[in-house]
Amino acid sequence: MPFKASVKEPVITLSAGPVATYPSILQALSRPVHYDYDPWFQEFYESVARKCAKALKVDQPALILHCEPAPGIEATAASLISPNDTVLNLASGVYGKGFGYWSARYHKDMVEIEVPFNESISPDAVAAAFKQRPDIKVVSLVHHDTPSGTINPAREIGKIVRDHDALLIVDAVSSFGGMDIHPNDCFADVFITGPGKCLGGAPGLTVMAVSDRAWKHIEANPKAPFASALSLKDWKDAWSKSKPFPFTPSVAEVNGLDAALDQYLDEGAEKVWHRHALTAKATRAGILAMGQELWAKTESIASPTCTAVKVPAGIKDSDIIAAARAEYGVVFSTGRNDTLGKLIRIGHMGPVAEPIYAIVALTAFGGALRKLGRKADVGAGIEAAMAVISAGKI
Amino acid sequence: MPFKASVKEPVITLSAGPVATYPSILQALSRPVHYDYDPWFQEFYESVARKCAKALKVDQPALILHCEPAPGIEATAASLISPNDTVLNLASGVYGKGFGYWSARYHKDMVEIEVPFNESISPDAVAAAFKQRPDIKVVSLVHHDTPSGTINPAREIGKIVRDHDALLIVDAVSSFGGMDIHPNDCFADVFITGPGKCLGGAPGLTVMAVSDRAWKHIEANPKAPFASALSLKDWKDAWSKSKPFPFTPSVAEVNGLDAALDQYLDEGAEKVWHRHALTAKATRAGILAMGQELWAKTESIASPTCTAVKVPAGIKDSDIIAAARAEYGVVFSTGRNDTLGKLIRIGHMGPVAEPIYAIVALTAFGGALRKLGRKADVGAGIEAAMAVISAGKI
Amino acid sequence: MPFKASVKEPVITLSAGPVATYPSILQALSRPVHYDYDPWFQEFYESVARKCAKALKVDQPALILHCEPAPGIEATAASLISPNDTVLNLASGVYGKGFGYWSARYHKDMVEIEVPFNESISPDAVAAAFKQRPDIKVVSLVHHDTPSGTINPAREIGKIVRDHDALLIVDAVSSFGGMDIHPNDCFADVFITGPGKCLGGAPGLTVMAVSDRAWKHIEANPKAPFASALSLKDWKDAWSKSKPFPFTPSVAEVNGLDAALDQYLDEGAEKVWHRHALTAKATRAGILAMGQELWAKTESIASPTCTAVKVPAGIKDSDIIAAARAEYGVVFSTGRNDTLGKLIRIGHMGPVAEPIYAIVALTAFGGALRKLGRKADVGAGIEAAMAVISAGKI
Amino acid sequence: MPFKASVKEPVITLSAGPVATYPSILQALSRPVHYDYDPWFQEFYESVARKCAKALKVDQPALILHCEPAPGIEATAASLISPNDTVLNLASGVYGKGFGYWSARYHKDMVEIEVPFNESISPDAVAAAFKQRPDIKVVSLVHHDTPSGTINPAREIGKIVRDHDALLIVDAVSSFGGMDIHPNDCFADVFITGPGKCLGGAPGLTVMAVSDRAWKHIEANPKAPFASALSLKDWKDAWSKSKPFPFTPSVAEVNGLDAALDQYLDEGAEKVWHRHALTAKATRAGILAMGQELWAKTESIASPTCTAVKVPAGIKDSDIIAAARAEYGVVFSTGRNDTLGKLIRIGHMGPVAEPIYAIVALTAFGGALRKLGRKADVGAGIEAAMAVISAGKI
Repeated sequence: MPFKASVKEPVITLSAGPVATYPSILQALSRPVHYDYDPWFQEFYESVARKCAKALKVDQPALILHCEPAPGIEATAASLISPNDTVLNLASGVYGKGFGYWSARYHKDMVEIEVPFNESISPDAVAAAFKQRPDIKVVSLVHHDTPSGTINPAREIGKIVRDHDALLIVDAVSSFGGMDIHPNDCFADVFITGPGKCLGGAPGLTVMAVSDRAWKHIEANPKAPFASALSLKDWKDAWSKSKPFPFTPSVAEVNGLDAALDQYLDEGAEKVWHRHALTAKATRAGILAMGQELWAKTESIASPTCTAVKVPAGIKDSDIIAAARAEYGVVFSTGRNDTLGKLIRIGHMGPVAEPIYAIVALTAFGGALRKLGRKADVGAGIEAAMAVISAGKI
Repeated sequence: MPFKASVKEPVITLSAGPVATYPSILQALSRPVHYDYDPWFQEFYESVARKCAKALKVDQPALILHCEPAPGIEATAASLISPNDTVLNLASGVYGKGFGYWSARYHKDMVEIEVPFNESISPDAVAAAFKQRPDIKVVSLVHHDTPSGTINPAREIGKIVRDHDALLIVDAVSSFGGMDIHPNDCFADVFITGPGKCLGGAPGLTVMAVSDRAWKHIEANPKAPFASALSLKDWKDAWSKSKPFPFTPSVAEVNGLDAALDQYLDEGAEKVWHRHALTAKATRAGILAMGQELWAKTESIASPTCTAVKVPAGIKDSDIIAAARAEYGVVFSTGRNDTLGKLIRIGHMGPVAEPIYAIVALTAFGGALRKLGRKADVGAGIEAAMAVISAGKI
Repeated sequence: MPFKASVKEPVITLSAGPVATYPSILQALSRPVHYDYDPWFQEFYESVARKCAKALKVDQPALILHCEPAPGIEATAASLISPNDTVLNLASGVYGKGFGYWSARYHKDMVEIEVPFNESISPDAVAAAFKQRPDIKVVSLVHHDTPSGTINPAREIGKIVRDHDALLIVDAVSSFGGMDIHPNDCFADVFITGPGKCLGGAPGLTVMAVSDRAWKHIEANPKAPFASALSLKDWKDAWSKSKPFPFTPSVAEVNGLDAALDQYLDEGAEKVWHRHALTAKATRAGILAMGQELWAKTESIASPTCTAVKVPAGIKDSDIIAAARAEYGVVFSTGRNDTLGKLIRIGHMGPVAEPIYAIVALTAFGGALRKLGRKADVGAGIEAAMAVISAGKI
Repeated sequence: MPFKASVKEPVITLSAGPVATYPSILQALSRPVHYDYDPWFQEFYESVARKCAKALKVDQPALILHCEPAPGIEATAASLISPNDTVLNLASGVYGKGFGYWSARYHKDMVEIEVPFNESISPDAVAAAFKQRPDIKVVSLVHHDTPSGTINPAREIGKIVRDHDALLIVDAVSSFGGMDIHPNDCFADVFITGPGKCLGGAPGLTVMAVSDRAWKHIEANPKAPFASALSLKDWKDAWSKSKPFPFTPSVAEVNGLDAALDQYLDEGAEKVWHRHALTAKATRAGILAMGQELWAKTESIASPTCTAVKVPAGIKDSDIIAAARAEYGVVFSTGRNDTLGKLIRIGHMGPVAEPIYAIVALTAFGGALRKLGRKADVGAGIEAAMAVISAGKI
């Protein structure tokens, strides 16, 4: 029996992920599901791991985990952090803060730099931490802390970490594919992303680039899981058409990932980044012109893939979400945990990273505020956004 | 760039899973990927969890884990087995044996009943184990040990376990949906299956029915994981449209699962089981008539969803696989671990659980043997299979 | 080799048809292509013809022609109009006028009522024509003359035609499914539509309701084509699962039509009409507030499924189209033949008959005008549209 | 509401068309439906017309008609045959004979060579006809008369026609793509095919190669239809991205055609032909070994894309069809018109042109005969087929 909901299906999804999916990826998800040990699939799997590497600009075929990135990051903590490791955890948002809890299960000690969740981590603070604690062995950084819509200076921080010979984990789940960031740009030893955000695919896989240094550390870690959902080691060689899978890969998701990579590489990474950035810039301009406030302390750290807007005092975030959904069929995201209730997130990821969706977002957001009795100069907002779009500069 | 392999895509997949997928499920995999916190999706997710329950003939919406069943079973071990628990592990095959290794990470003690991997567990042995070790708290049973293609007497064993007030884990991954087995039939406290075998869907999800007794045990387990890929607790209430997800569900896989359940329920479970059983019976008849041997010690324990055939002495299993693939484009599975090299598996799951595929299998298997210089009376095999099909009795 | 174009794929299509397609229909287009004479398909085909009838609110299963509606209308002219017939052709637009040319190939004589292509046919004029020419046997009316975006009063005209016992052809290709019009509402003897406009499906089929009176006339027409692409007779009984097809039906399109009807009937016709009308009303309000002019002489005859906007003097329509496409990825339609160059058409059909797309249209249209050096008060336009949307009244 | 039939969906379709469709084509049918006048689609359409030309080995982009080939052939008759033309109609089957009826609507005079419908046209007879009637201007040949499963010697006949400067129409609907035949091979002036047979796509389009000589004749034909479903002229230049469409193209079908051509060209034409021929040869060997008779008078004229088998005396064709369908879920085709009741057709087109489907066909056919009380040595049939497959020679 086909499902009938009490609410209409959404018209336009501008969420922070799972995101609206490119048509070519939806088609790919309906490719035949082949047997994982058939030689055709084994070659295909290797080709996808290599295509990931091409997009990530690394040499080694990517490590693909068959779960969405949150458990993938947990598995990274479990695999990389040994009982002798001091960890530097960089927390500028809910996801950064959260990594510390996973780390605590495995590390010897942890140093944490925490900033307000609308700010970003200062490279100087990282340098100072290393000065104080030269025993730091593993550093964890969330590049784009999605529940805040803010970006950390991964390149600068990565340089410092590498200079101190520590290992760097970069969560680039919701930035890679939507802006110019790759493992080698930021000296990442474990760089984590997935198809379900800026690549505009379905969630359900983790795509990682793991450096040789990181593999060595994992292999030396006596507590590194194996035969486990938390193991990176299990899948280390699975990319190879001649090596077995530790358990069944998610064949349909791999089909979708293949198409997500094609979409990204065929359109051209620079073009993709540009439309993400332009859409975000137009959205921010419109939000400000409408008399609303951005969550990010400075626009320079606002993400090009997701715009977080402050919830005006006296209104509930869920009412804004509901009003935009009811009147325009437009889907936004709320915050998460500590940012819940404080902000609304407008995603610009994948197929909706197109300037026209800045207009859609501003209208639905402004219309929702009005529905809730607030003023919002939507006209001005849209004029401001159009000016950005027309100029075309990011 | 579209992938081009050095080998042709398979023509017909008769694997032990991942299996050929029903067309309606492939279509569903290409449904829009909705935002998980949109009210439409939240209602949809609940409806799928309830549809699972309907198929499983239980009241409580199913627990869905967003990984394929192997890590789902690992998570069950991690969540259910507390440091005070004595476990009875029933090992009639590779998967049964393997559960013991996971158990060892969590249990206080383990009793194991192991039989040759072409036999099945005797209920009497289970009863005897309880007599000897009344402290057994958790019992683990693989209903269909796929790498052997053999079925254990889950109903009888389940009755004994319940009578001793122990908790029963049943791995029904490759039997549920293809034969008459449900949680309540076998007094399972944790009943584990997924869409990627007899339901003819994509792999990538675990579907579980967890009894209240099991939930109580998990909640009392001080070591039960939370905020983890190994946690059952995290997802306990996630079926409810008003409860959050611990991490992002695999939206596309949920779309596929919905269609897999529709396919099963709309066709009618009895009809589905019948064609699985008839296809398997015809295959077995043909294999024997061709002068080949079944792996299962007695035909009565041979699975209706997968037929394991002994590899004739002096031949390599991989050569049979390769020859069937090259000459007919037909995909079979080898054994796994201890059964690797000893048997070939012919899957009868989902859309290929149709009698005509018994003919396909016999031809490709017999043709492969001949290619390798062996005799195989394919004509006789097919006549025997046709006789079974024509009689239509299972 | 996948196609790579010199232009980007469109982002949002607001055309007058082919239109953006509902996801459920795209999925249905990928259903298996079954053999047309297989009993499954024969039953399915009958069920689709009956589902059409349900949507059309007629008793007799619909006549499905396996071509898009333009040749379907040609076939109607060829089949219905006999050498003894005087035809009254009602021309309020390019399509209405065009029918006269087809009629001329078959009729004895033709009376034509032609009004400027931004006006509609007056029922009084029709009554007057019958008074003057009581020999009128066939009347042809285009309900929504798409190249003008204007609606004719089909109910009133139909009543007059029936009162004079003439036969009425109604081209409802781009109105049915998007507004309240059915064969019996307007006494149509041949009512023509298709899945590719307001039903939000793919083009490629013609769906017709043919009255018994019309069938009698066709059967009495010595020149009515048979064994021909121009024949209605050939397909008269093809809906029946027990009757043959004159040639191969377009199986994939039938699959899509089935889903298009489900989408329409499951959502509920009234709801579908309402969002078409509301989107059009918001668009018109915005266009006027932006200082632009509607093509329709009075707003009361402007179509709820397509808004035609006058091209401002001194600008080329193709430049507007190109600018909206380049800057926003939004697709509009130009006029056709006599209306070409004079208007731009903004489609509100199927999935884009949602108010948010009025905003999209106004932004892209206004932005395009500015790009061409004209003023357009987009802010005011959007405010006006939002007021309509918020009020929710049509 | 999803359709529920009284019969099960077929398991394997071995029809003479519409045929089982390649997965990649089903996916392509679910691509977005773009607006036909959007520049992206116009470029895409041209690329598809050029891709057709590549497959057809001609220079000029193909003529695509938006109907299945039967009306496409009617349109050819209507467009090419002028009131001054004497036509030579070559009838070796139902379709060949049928062309004469269409021809009769347009020609001045017709000469017909008719042979029994299990034989083929002799080139000598064609040469003789020209000798007797040097005024023959147009010759029509069905290359593969599908209702008979027989092939005519198109190359030899084409040479003779060209030598006499007449125009040749070749219906290659069910041969092109499955065997080595192209317009220039047989001097065809109008070469007609479509995606729904050996290319393994959906029916609904006609693909044609029209020579300059043919276009000249059409343009000189005062009766050649225009603004009509019967017009070739209307679509002559529509392939060009800068030229308009006479009516709306079937966008989804064009998407599917694109993928059908990719499938054919990427696999490699020779490989595709080889598996069609091998499957047919294995089927024929099996049919004969089973003690059944081929319809074709000599095996040398039996089609490599469809095997016609005589219905044994005393049995009804529909009973065979029904029995194969009921017991094995396998779909065959009956004959048509004059061959109806006399033969059963086993299609080897597109994805089922794979040797394993010869086995499927023989089993289902033999099993059906037995169900009807006849003897059929299926075992022997399958052995014979396997010998052909194993040898791999066509």
